[in-house]
Amino acid sequence: MLLYEQKLQLFGLWDTDRDIPLEGSHWLNMDNLIKALHSKGHTVTVVRTTKSWCTKEESLHYSFSTIPVTDGVEYEEFVKRIVKKVIDRVRNDWSLYFFMFSSMSKVHKHACDLATAVLKDKDLMKTLKENQYDLVLTDPAWGAGILVAHYLQLPLVYNVRWVISREGHLTIAPSPMSYIPMTLSGLSDKMTFTERVKNMLFYLLFTVRDRLTLRPQYQAVCDEFFQPGVDFYELLQGADLWLMRVDFVFEFPRPTMPNVIYTGGFQCKPAKPLPQELEEFVHSSGEHGVIIMSLGTFVTEFPHDIADVIAAAFAQLPQKVIWRHKGDRPATLGNNTLLVDWMPQNDLLGHSKTRLFVAHGGTNGVQEAIYHGIPVVGLPLFFDQYDNLLRLKERGGAKLLSMATVDKNNNFLEALQDVLDEPSYRMNMQKLSRLHRDVPMEPLDTALFWIEFVMRHKGAAHLRTESYRMPWYSYHSVDVVLLLLGVVSVLILLLVAIVRYLCVRKCLKRKIKSE
Amino acid sequence: MLLYEQKLQLFGLWDTDRDIPLEGSHWLNMDNLIKALHSKGHTVTVVRTTKSWCTKEESLHYSFSTIPVTDGVEYEEFVKRIVKKVIDRVRNDWSLYFFMFSSMSKVHKHACDLATAVLKDKDLMKTLKENQYDLVLTDPAWGAGILVAHYLQLPLVYNVRWVISREGHLTIAPSPMSYIPMTLSGLSDKMTFTERVKNMLFYLLFTVRDRLTLRPQYQAVCDEFFQPGVDFYELLQGADLWLMRVDFVFEFPRPTMPNVIYTGGFQCKPAKPLPQELEEFVHSSGEHGVIIMSLGTFVTEFPHDIADVIAAAFAQLPQKVIWRHKGDRPATLGNNTLLVDWMPQNDLLGHSKTRLFVAHGGTNGVQEAIYHGIPVVGLPLFFDQYDNLLRLKERGGAKLLSMATVDKNNNFLEALQDVLDEPSYRMNMQKLSRLHRDVPMEPLDTALFWIEFVMRHKGAAHLRTESYRMPWYSYHSVDVVLLLLGVVSVLILLLVAIVRYLCVRKCLKRKIKSE
Repeated sequence: MLLYEQKLQLFGLWDTDRDIPLEGSHWLNMDNLIKALHSKGHTVTVVRTTKSWCTKEESLHYSFSTIPVTDGVEYEEFVKRIVKKVIDRVRNDWSLYFFMFSSMSKVHKHACDLATAVLKDKDLMKTLKENQYDLVLTDPAWGAGILVAHYLQLPLVYNVRWVISREGHLTIAPSPMSYIPMTLSGLSDKMTFTERVKNMLFYLLFTVRDRLTLRPQYQAVCDEFFQPGVDFYELLQGADLWLMRVDFVFEFPRPTMPNVIYTGGFQCKPAKPLPQELEEFVHSSGEHGVIIMSLGTFVTEFPHDIADVIAAAFAQLPQKVIWRHKGDRPATLGNNTLLVDWMPQNDLLGHSKTRLFVAHGGTNGVQEAIYHGIPVVGLPLFFDQYDNLLRLKERGGAKLLSMATVDKNNNFLEALQDVLDEPSYRMNMQKLSRLHRDVPMEPLDTALFWIEFVMRHKGAAHLRTESYRMPWYSYHSVDVVLLLLGVVSVLILLLVAIVRYLCVRKCLKRKIKSE
Repeated sequence: MLLYEQKLQLFGLWDTDRDIPLEGSHWLNMDNLIKALHSKGHTVTVVRTTKSWCTKEESLHYSFSTIPVTDGVEYEEFVKRIVKKVIDRVRNDWSLYFFMFSSMSKVHKHACDLATAVLKDKDLMKTLKENQYDLVLTDPAWGAGILVAHYLQLPLVYNVRWVISREGHLTIAPSPMSYIPMTLSGLSDKMTFTERVKNMLFYLLFTVRDRLTLRPQYQAVCDEFFQPGVDFYELLQGADLWLMRVDFVFEFPRPTMPNVIYTGGFQCKPAKPLPQELEEFVHSSGEHGVIIMSLGTFVTEFPHDIADVIAAAFAQLPQKVIWRHKGDRPATLGNNTLLVDWMPQNDLLGHSKTRLFVAHGGTNGVQEAIYHGIPVVGLPLFFDQYDNLLRLKERGGAKLLSMATVDKNNNFLEALQDVLDEPSYRMNMQKLSRLHRDVPMEPLDTALFWIEFVMRHKGAAHLRTESYRMPWYSYHSVDVVLLLLGVVSVLILLLVAIVRYLCVRKCLKRKIKSE
């Protein structure tokens, strides 16, 4: 294996553009993987736009190719609009869904523009071809990387949680809607009849959206650059390897495929010592311990009234609190609460004094809570955050609140007290932590092993079914069932005809006889 | 982990009875696993009958509990009857299928008798309860172990390839009949329309057989010993872990489940040096190398005419041949052919002089051929042997012959020469060997890790969906689809009614006006 590590190169294509939210946690995850690949001696090229927000030129662990893409909506403005809608109490409201739906369509429009810009850039494509990369690594939440991989005829590896608009498994693995909850539905894997109806409606809604608004955009790029008959959805399903950013400690058990490798929590690490000042603050909490609160990088603004309620609740607790909060200092802030711009979240979650994590429910934060076994009070905002937190709640490790009612009836304080006082929350999270860590190989090492596997064998064809190439009616055996039903019907009709013929003959004979 | 290895005990239940074919390769595989568990410090108890054929009292690596079961058909007679039918040229004939079908029903009758005998034995069950085992390990090709595990309320681990009468995946994972070939159908994962019809017919046949003749037998034991409502098929599907004796170098890619662990080829080991006499014979083959032939433990008799044709074909080759053959010495035997009663098959397959393996296609032999990268000429006899060999043929590593025509038109000699002379067979098998060996963890170590995982966590509930408890119409969302279709129909009817009402009203008004 060492032989290959030095000899081969790895090509990572990643849709980074400050105009569209292709970054955030998606990029952080990819960055982690690329760093690990670099440390194993691989050379990684990242394709990015001039306006890229997260990928810095000065990064030392990979080389860049920069693609100029000039127009686009303001990324920050886009996020701010979503957050504002959420804070305006429309969580759980259809208007938020439709807003998200229409926004996502725009986002994919930008991804297609990016793909077109990349594929049109003759010099770039020539360089990429000449470099003879071993594979393309991409996040299929946006489709540009898939199209470039096909152009370059290279093996394709996904670092994946979402595919275009659906949870990754929905695209690659059989997913009976009777126990596979759709994201955004807020359902678990055990549903009542009504919930199954709701789940099916979500499935239909997403499928129609996918077919009508998202796929055609990417198909148009296919039609422009590739031979007739190249189907974008087949390219998407044809990836060699899917490094799925979940595991079954987090995700509900469900069907999967041989080329899906579970790498959930691959970014989690044992805690490093805290900076001295922070360690002193944490240590001063004594036996009561520390609560940490972070709603991720997206939520920079926070309405005063909610911030006041949260601060007031914290002030009533004997614990110390570290709160990642960028807005004005809430009037009700207690002495026990430290406001910070940024926190070493993983190191704090792994600290022995940490008792509780108030989180928005991004996949990374939830995985870190599982890794360190810290119970959660969840304040989901948008995207998959509610569903992520629901998975902890179902296992008895979290309590969920809605942003719409967090400031009502002491909701927030009661949730904090409940999770702090009831030992089962911590015990359940510790159990999840033990299960998550009890694996034959660390998730990051697993990811690296399988990426290098694809490099060594130039793909992973033996793990990948090509059944997705079948027409839907063949895949689901509709044609076969219709034929068999037809044959059975004909046989029954024949039988009936024969019986009738015999009866009629008999009757006629009897009639003739009697006459 | 070491802590557990000394403290806990493992309980293996295994249906061994010399009267019914529960042994053969099934037992050899289990024995391998138990040896490995024993070498890791686990205590294993095997439940067996007094007439057990394969499990020897003098085994040192586990302790026994012996269950007296007295009646039963003669196992050897059963196998001889099958082999005779095969040799009588009924391979590919429906009469063989029906013979196998009816025989299997009898075999399961005996398994149920065994389960009843075990569950009725109050002293034994008391001892088993008191021993506080950590889990039950069983091969679900027969159901007795499943029933005893439920009685003892212990976690259940399968060492599995077949479940009652179906390939293991068909019971646990979604299996679209459009690309999952049924065993005995002789089909691959890429089928024409006609082949898909054939596959569906096989599926229906097996399903009907399963429901009408096999399941009711086990259900009767359930009804006798357990509370009402305990469904045998649910017990069967509810196992914590499935150690599946295939991998995707052997099996076609297909959906799977999180609690299926692939341990295909776990019995394969690097070759040990051969006994001196055999090594001298092999070495004497020079550049031409050696062919080895074995049709497994079942085929002890072989018709003279076929044996003569095979011996004559071998005699025309420059290679040396080692042939496991127990019958009379064929008249046409050449000087280059050595007849043996038994051979160190794994060590011979791993020898650098070995060029070709003439095999009957048992799973173990095929896995060993893959492990050592040796091309195969296949002479399948019964059960899954044709399908196993087909998997090698589809990857370009084997040529298949039918027993019915092996002695016609130089078929056998031509097949041998073809595989020896055409380098692609060897290259393809070497490729499969590389893929099979390129794993993060050896299959045997993987099996041991996950068995111990179930011991540490008292099951593997988080990897196991409980969707099998749903009624079939809910699992397949038939009820939801019917409701939605109903709602849509009512809406359409309402719309039509309103339109008609408006039209009628308009017409009436016009009529009144015109009047």
